[in-house]
Amino acid sequence: WFVACDSEPDSTHYPNVILTGEAVKAIRAEQAHLPLLKQSIDGLQKNVELEMMNGIEVPIPKDPAGGYTHLRHKQNYMNMYGAGVLWQVTGEARFANYVRDMLLAYAELYPTLEVHPVKASYAPGRLFWQQLNEAVWLVYVSQAYDCIAGILTAEQKELIENELLVPYADFLSVENPKVFNRVHNHGVWAAAAVGMTGFAIDNEELVNRAFNGVETGPKEEVGAGFLVQLTQLFSPDGYYTEGPYYQRYAMLPYLLFAQAIDNNRPEMKIFEYRDNILQKAALTTLQLTNTNGQFFPINDALKSMSYMSTSLVHAVDFVYGLDESQKELLSIARQQGEVIICEAGLKVARAIANGEARLFKWESKEFRDGPEGKQGAFGVLRSNSGKNSQTVTMKYASQGMGHGHFDRLTISFYDQGKEILQDYGAARYVNVEYKHGGRYLPENKTWARQTIAHNTLVVDKDSQSEGNVKTASSHHSEPWVFDASKEDVKVMSAKENKAYEGVNMHRTIALLNLPEVSEDAIILDLYRVESEAQHKYHLPYYYKGQMMHTNVDYKAETTALQAMGKNDGYQHLWQTAEGLMTEGTNRFVWLNEDRFYTLTTEAQTNDKLLLTRIGAGDPEFSLRNEPAVIFERDKTASTLFASAIEAHGNKHPVTELVSGLKGHVAEIKTLINNSEYTLVQLAFANESKVVFAICNNSNDQSASHQLMANGQEYNWTGVCQLFK
Amino acid sequence: WFVACDSEPDSTHYPNVILTGEAVKAIRAEQAHLPLLKQSIDGLQKNVELEMMNGIEVPIPKDPAGGYTHLRHKQNYMNMYGAGVLWQVTGEARFANYVRDMLLAYAELYPTLEVHPVKASYAPGRLFWQQLNEAVWLVYVSQAYDCIAGILTAEQKELIENELLVPYADFLSVENPKVFNRVHNHGVWAAAAVGMTGFAIDNEELVNRAFNGVETGPKEEVGAGFLVQLTQLFSPDGYYTEGPYYQRYAMLPYLLFAQAIDNNRPEMKIFEYRDNILQKAALTTLQLTNTNGQFFPINDALKSMSYMSTSLVHAVDFVYGLDESQKELLSIARQQGEVIICEAGLKVARAIANGEARLFKWESKEFRDGPEGKQGAFGVLRSNSGKNSQTVTMKYASQGMGHGHFDRLTISFYDQGKEILQDYGAARYVNVEYKHGGRYLPENKTWARQTIAHNTLVVDKDSQSEGNVKTASSHHSEPWVFDASKEDVKVMSAKENKAYEGVNMHRTIALLNLPEVSEDAIILDLYRVESEAQHKYHLPYYYKGQMMHTNVDYKAETTALQAMGKNDGYQHLWQTAEGLMTEGTNRFVWLNEDRFYTLTTEAQTNDKLLLTRIGAGDPEFSLRNEPAVIFERDKTASTLFASAIEAHGNKHPVTELVSGLKGHVAEIKTLINNSEYTLVQLAFANESKVVFAICNNSNDQSASHQLMANGQEYNWTGVCQLFK
Ligand SMILES: [Ca+2]
Ligand SMILES: [Ca+2]
Ligand SMILES: [Ca+2]
Ligand SMILES: [Mg+2]
Ligand SMILES: [Mg+2]
Ligand SMILES: [Mg+2]
Ligand SMILES: [Mg+2]
Repeated sequence: WFVACDSEPDSTHYPNVILTGEAVKAIRAEQAHLPLLKQSIDGLQKNVELEMMNGIEVPIPKDPAGGYTHLRHKQNYMNMYGAGVLWQVTGEARFANYVRDMLLAYAELYPTLEVHPVKASYAPGRLFWQQLNEAVWLVYVSQAYDCIAGILTAEQKELIENELLVPYADFLSVENPKVFNRVHNHGVWAAAAVGMTGFAIDNEELVNRAFNGVETGPKEEVGAGFLVQLTQLFSPDGYYTEGPYYQRYAMLPYLLFAQAIDNNRPEMKIFEYRDNILQKAALTTLQLTNTNGQFFPINDALKSMSYMSTSLVHAVDFVYGLDESQKELLSIARQQGEVIICEAGLKVARAIANGEARLFKWESKEFRDGPEGKQGAFGVLRSNSGKNSQTVTMKYASQGMGHGHFDRLTISFYDQGKEILQDYGAARYVNVEYKHGGRYLPENKTWARQTIAHNTLVVDKDSQSEGNVKTASSHHSEPWVFDASKEDVKVMSAKENKAYEGVNMHRTIALLNLPEVSEDAIILDLYRVESEAQHKYHLPYYYKGQMMHTNVDYKAETTALQAMGKNDGYQHLWQTAEGLMTEGTNRFVWLNEDRFYTLTTEAQTNDKLLLTRIGAGDPEFSLRNEPAVIFERDKTASTLFASAIEAHGNKHPVTELVSGLKGHVAEIKTLINNSEYTLVQLAFANESKVVFAICNNSNDQSASHQLMANGQEYNWTGVCQLFK
Repeated sequence: WFVACDSEPDSTHYPNVILTGEAVKAIRAEQAHLPLLKQSIDGLQKNVELEMMNGIEVPIPKDPAGGYTHLRHKQNYMNMYGAGVLWQVTGEARFANYVRDMLLAYAELYPTLEVHPVKASYAPGRLFWQQLNEAVWLVYVSQAYDCIAGILTAEQKELIENELLVPYADFLSVENPKVFNRVHNHGVWAAAAVGMTGFAIDNEELVNRAFNGVETGPKEEVGAGFLVQLTQLFSPDGYYTEGPYYQRYAMLPYLLFAQAIDNNRPEMKIFEYRDNILQKAALTTLQLTNTNGQFFPINDALKSMSYMSTSLVHAVDFVYGLDESQKELLSIARQQGEVIICEAGLKVARAIANGEARLFKWESKEFRDGPEGKQGAFGVLRSNSGKNSQTVTMKYASQGMGHGHFDRLTISFYDQGKEILQDYGAARYVNVEYKHGGRYLPENKTWARQTIAHNTLVVDKDSQSEGNVKTASSHHSEPWVFDASKEDVKVMSAKENKAYEGVNMHRTIALLNLPEVSEDAIILDLYRVESEAQHKYHLPYYYKGQMMHTNVDYKAETTALQAMGKNDGYQHLWQTAEGLMTEGTNRFVWLNEDRFYTLTTEAQTNDKLLLTRIGAGDPEFSLRNEPAVIFERDKTASTLFASAIEAHGNKHPVTELVSGLKGHVAEIKTLINNSEYTLVQLAFANESKVVFAICNNSNDQSASHQLMANGQEYNWTGVCQLFK
């Protein structure tokens, strides 16, 4: 197979899929002066050279995910992609030869392969146990081929295209139309793989197949192919129903194929499709992060995943490449420390070198769910747009398919990027063989998905929708009001009437910026319930940190602990203390690293405070043993849980000085709560007071309201109002 | 009191205590070009200006620690010190006037004061509830007076010296000779305060009092005064018996007074006293840190305390000021981000600006305890001198006075600066009023000090020395061998024969650097026990992180937990699982953030593995709920616990890729264990083997040993040997 080749790449064979001829010329000319680009190229080169030292190995497929042949074929596509790009950028023939020789080896192997011997997927591949990996391989290899095609003889080209690339693309499409036509991220990867290969080998039919899907007889109702996928999977706000952890992954094939389309069929204006849906999705993914860049861990999500991931490097670069006015993206790119080696990455590196980066601004925003934006939403309120802000999220979306949690109206609270009231995330140690081979753990279902694992109301110790995905998927929460336009009070409010039969729930979060009271935001949390029957209510707050204080006279379990139940997640909680709350204002204080947090709650007679710790029913010690405070109200029909949450003070790790030990909220008091209105008063330590009012039976922004409470008259227009 | 004053300070009245005239001139000339110095001055100025805006307030003393008048007088001395220095450095009269006016206010108040109304200390002060604070006030105020004396009229000088400074110094010395003569850090603060005041007001008698103590009739046996204190409190290696957390605090008055002596009586060569003891103590404090700069938390210690503390800023600057060849100190100073505004700080800032900083090197070293270095030691082994090394510490010292823990032969393990096998530290939230006013918690005594709270052997569920401080203080452990001279094996070994009656214990840690096996160090941990009677042994390892795997067939408690005992710390442990170990090699694997750790242990028939979690018997939820694995061997007399500890692999938070999931130690096997020798073999996954041998009855480094084990002959000279 060895063919001597020292020439510069033939200029008529510049690549055209993601990397382009123009970009290659500019990258070669400018890289020395663009540190981020240079660093990205050098990093790639270091990795590829290390791998090239091992020679070429194309083993017969045998192993499942994580096994040797699986990892080898995965590494091979990364190596081919990297070497292809490096051939273009450096002009060093050893890179091109390496790709060529490996492609020829694959062209010899591929025609001999049957279906993969590990039969564990609904859609098995040939090189890999599942077609998802199979498609990813081609997404990278089509780019590698595109880069080195110029050095191939006519015979080599024919061999690689006819024995490898075309049959490989056929396998992913015409031979497996069900996966290919699926409106699902597996389908998107397949479409991208086939379409990008079409561009790489100039095969119009493959490109069209990617656009339109494969005919399977009588046309499916939603249609198939990339354009349909673009319509179905994101909401009009660019929100992906499974949540940001999966959105990150699903974005990559969309972005790559779209960039390839834009390079080759610019007249399609693919990035403008559906009101710039891909750009919106990319920006939404960036916004769905705490201010350390980690994605909000709703549904099945691992908490360490962040916008540092490869997929978001593509997102940042491609979006900036389209719209160079978005200078805020540059500060993220700088943090990412790398760019994609293509025209978009070049633009990013240029602008950063030119000092154009601006701080990224995190927004308060409601992200609607559902293809038409009508299946609830995920709300995010932030005290300001900077890294040190306080952030509250509320989930009032649809179920989020099979990875969804039974967590309607759950909230999370972040202070300065740190989780303070947490969502547990998924119970899984990805890729850690010790823990069920790195798959989702049994506790993901028995614990992480259950309602009690979340900061939301549990009725009668049952999970929402009886823990049934199908039931839960048939309905969604209803946004009531979202208004982040005012400086002193930002509000999100939503209702959930179907999670528990006969119980209507309505939660409102008001983020108060009151500099005269506190330099940090004060969060008002109103959880209203309407029910004709009496129930036992549990409202948990999974605080992170060490409990410091409560005024509740509790009794701790000091010699024995019991699990709190047998099902619906309660079997995973140890009850560590119980106390009868005082009617009126109750306080719970904790310390997280160097700051204090106070949860101030209004209790009724016989309300209980329960303290718990995760870890019961965990025979393999897979759960994190973290605490919660649960407010219990028993034998109650309609009611309101009114609480305030605040960050305050500081404990210096080295000077050991403590300031602001006490929170600012002195009293919380419900003035009115009925089916028409809820009015709650907060009194502060500085003796000032505010009253927050919301209308419960109309969310007409132009309606006027007038009522008496506590001897005072309250007048306002719109759904809610802060009276100071 | 107002006296116009705009002049530059009188050049005949430059200060001489810590800041000196020469230094002032140089600081003024050079500060613009020395970023670290400039930043330190600007930081000080910002703080002082903020405080000056509040005017001068000198309240009548009333409150205990943490109360208003306490904090006010504390802040006042900081403000006077800062303003005094700023007057010298900036020449702006407002700073000098502020100090003068405050001093005059104190001179009016002080003569009216009786003993402080809060009667809670063995040695009450006047401004403060205890003389310790009283002395600290004068350490700072003597410097402030020294700085601004040049602007005072003769009458003002007389007033301040006669009504305030001299009587204040008298109160701390002749009026309270017991505290003043005490060989204890309270005594050192008092001596420094009185001596520095002597230099500031040119009063020889005060200086001599500080040097010699106060005559109290028949001379005490150890003598009194600063020179005696320098002899008694540090070991010849500069180790302070209470441990590094308290050493950091005790260092400051020593260093300040020594610097004042060096400035005013250079002929005393105070820094050379006792073979450079102060320099040794400073460097020892820096070395007693993990590679994040946090002090090893032995005895009562808060874990966040680090070499970023003010005391260590002084230590780094003063030692560098004495010996400008110590360029490694400069990298610490750079991390500290500030210098003391004096000649030493100037030298540091100059050298850093000049690019002279070298990386600090952490050493493997044995720090002897006791005034003559004969009361045991604290050993530290590190795989290398860099930030990413593995570090093991072992405590085989004396009790460490009232703050000591019953933790002889305990070890801790750090990887890349992170605690992996932890010492619990103290049970205390300093300055957090919610938690017993910020004092030591009851659980400090019932839990943190007990033997079971440590990574050392517990015999019959009893604490060492029956948890009696007096008994424990009457003896200490015996160093056996410490040898960090070899690249492939570094060893520390010590015996403890008095902690348990009739039980002789001998622990050896060998840190193996075997690049052919692992890029990380492998720790061999041999805990040998000799006893004629049978006992129940517990050997706990307080691992930090999440358990991943064990080959032991254990049964977890999933529905109820019980406390493990009623006393000696066991009342604070929940038992979460129990399993019978396999005879031979057993493995326990955990994950801490992004790395894996494996503890491989050799078990005998009927050995048990217990899993526990801290948190029982904790009615106020003050303890951290952290796990341990405990090896239990019951009904056994003499025996050996042989284990290996290793860090391995990586779990990437964003790519989610996992490497090096499995440790390198395949088998651990005792070849010989008797009163003469212990030989243990490690077999590795790569099929290589090593044997570690130690002589148990002689630590003569020149003795030769020869013996047969497992059919092989082992010959060596010295106490121990690694056979590869
Ligand atoms: Ca149920
Ligand atoms: Ca006992
Ligand atoms: Ca005892
Ligand atoms: Mg969840
Ligand atoms: Mg309902
Ligand atoms: Mg301890
Ligand atoms: Mg003994």
